Amino acid sequence: MAVLSGGVGAAKFLQGLVKAVDESEVVAIVNTGDDWYLHGLKICPDLDTITYTLSGQVNTEMGWGRANETWNAMESLEILGGETWFRLGDRDLATHLYRTQRAQSGATLDVITREITEAFSIGCTILPMTNDTVSTKVQIENRADLLDFQEYFVKLRAEPRVSKVAYQGCESASVLKEAMDALLIADQIIIAPSNPILSIEPILSLPGIKECLLERRNKVIAISPIVNGKALKGPAGKIMAELGQEASVLGIAKRYREFAKYLVIDNLDIEYSGEIRNSSMEPVVLGTVMTTPDVATGLAKEIIRLI
Amino acid sequence: MAVLSGGVGAAKFLQGLVKAVDESEVVAIVNTGDDWYLHGLKICPDLDTITYTLSGQVNTEMGWGRANETWNAMESLEILGGETWFRLGDRDLATHLYRTQRAQSGATLDVITREITEAFSIGCTILPMTNDTVSTKVQIENRADLLDFQEYFVKLRAEPRVSKVAYQGCESASVLKEAMDALLIADQIIIAPSNPILSIEPILSLPGIKECLLERRNKVIAISPIVNGKALKGPAGKIMAELGQEASVLGIAKRYREFAKYLVIDNLDIEYSGEIRNSSMEPVVLGTVMTTPDVATGLAKEIIRLI
Repeated sequence: MAVLSGGVGAAKFLQGLVKAVDESEVVAIVNTGDDWYLHGLKICPDLDTITYTLSGQVNTEMGWGRANETWNAMESLEILGGETWFRLGDRDLATHLYRTQRAQSGATLDVITREITEAFSIGCTILPMTNDTVSTKVQIENRADLLDFQEYFVKLRAEPRVSKVAYQGCESASVLKEAMDALLIADQIIIAPSNPILSIEPILSLPGIKECLLERRNKVIAISPIVNGKALKGPAGKIMAELGQEASVLGIAKRYREFAKYLVIDNLDIEYSGEIRNSSMEPVVLGTVMTTPDVATGLAKEIIRLI
Repeated sequence: MAVLSGGVGAAKFLQGLVKAVDESEVVAIVNTGDDWYLHGLKICPDLDTITYTLSGQVNTEMGWGRANETWNAMESLEILGGETWFRLGDRDLATHLYRTQRAQSGATLDVITREITEAFSIGCTILPMTNDTVSTKVQIENRADLLDFQEYFVKLRAEPRVSKVAYQGCESASVLKEAMDALLIADQIIIAPSNPILSIEPILSLPGIKECLLERRNKVIAISPIVNGKALKGPAGKIMAELGQEASVLGIAKRYREFAKYLVIDNLDIEYSGEIRNSSMEPVVLGTVMTTPDVATGLAKEIIRLI
């Protein structure tokens, strides 16, 4: 079972999925387009959000970062006049220190990720989509240069109007072999309820991924991150609208229908079922709002029954 | 007043000196030979020890690091199996995050140091000896490669026998102009009671420094870090002995006599006064063990009276 994954939404779904099936069968293929360097540290937000969530150590209030966190480094950095808009808790910092040190020793991201997830006693497989660098860049109005995703997303709180999103390096990046293998043999390929443009598209932009999904379309189930015309979290709806796409489950269907047979939509969007079917996807109407881990498990159970 | 400075011993002396004189007249020229990178972060132990000490924020028990420190990052890093032998407290980490981010933005070490010392409300001037990279390396018995100073000093607790110390990059490094200017005009040039081989020699190894001190020998006062045949702190005595030098104030006199007129020795070493005088330095017998900041201030007052 392979899951194309972004951050918070994917983490919640995976948390349900590993309880619905034998967790050792779950392979999360995780977006690394929003990885970046700050303060000299290599930061992988989506990998960490999933690791912390699956290990029960995520800050559930924020959805990212670690529970029981302290902020002494950031507090001191603020006094120094440093860049503190990207909040790195003291315990969270350890993950970045470790990753950076290992990377500088020559370890690849998949190896480092395995080491970290083992230390967090994660029972499923968490893979970066690639060991190469792919950088999601965002063009906003009134600025000529492309912004790093995190600068747009965190520093500017995803407020400016987006005119373009680019995935720098995607053409020359290689999908992690283990990830491609998982996609080739998976009984189900699930596209998590993550931002389609910022989290899923970087994965799809890697050479070979779309072809593989096209090939295996009958096994591909996408979960809409848009419910009732709004993203559950984050700017997915806003960005889709700004890029001229329909910010509804129909917009999601348009993005995924070519290579996904099923589209899981929320009960609130049942009215769109007909149109989704007309767009040649099979609509699956479920409660998709994962308010608790148990709800997520219930959703996962329904989804794995589909195929 | 210019002070050639290492870490803990120099910091204690400077803490006394800034109370004995107008602190704005004090220029500390600080060893950067033991600067290094760990976890991708740029770490400058001597600059930080002096900054934390002068701002009253040093961990007085350890002599380095910050007071009221927490260790959540290190604790988490330990669980990850990361390198934790070099202890970086959560608040201390902020300094390294700031320095690394600024360095990667193109700021030079002197500029970054000024920013940090200003944030810590330091009233004197703290200068790195150079903006270039000089790396103190240590050769130990039974190992062919040169170790980074911190690896020898912290990881191996300065235990292995030292056969050679090298200051990589010193020939091609440029003394910070502001530091050279300070040496040229200082009424007094004080060599702090720091490790002569690991802290002072890296400064002396920079092009032009020794020549300047030779030129101004009458203004140069060295304070012995060796008292009663032992270093007050750290492995100065041990390393001097291992390198075949006398681990006493006489060994210190030998190292400094060429370019320093005065040698401040402790009361306990009064017996060596004659020999020091014979070696053409002027011995100054004082209480040099800085058990409290007030003792340090007293020592500083005596020393500045010399010239």
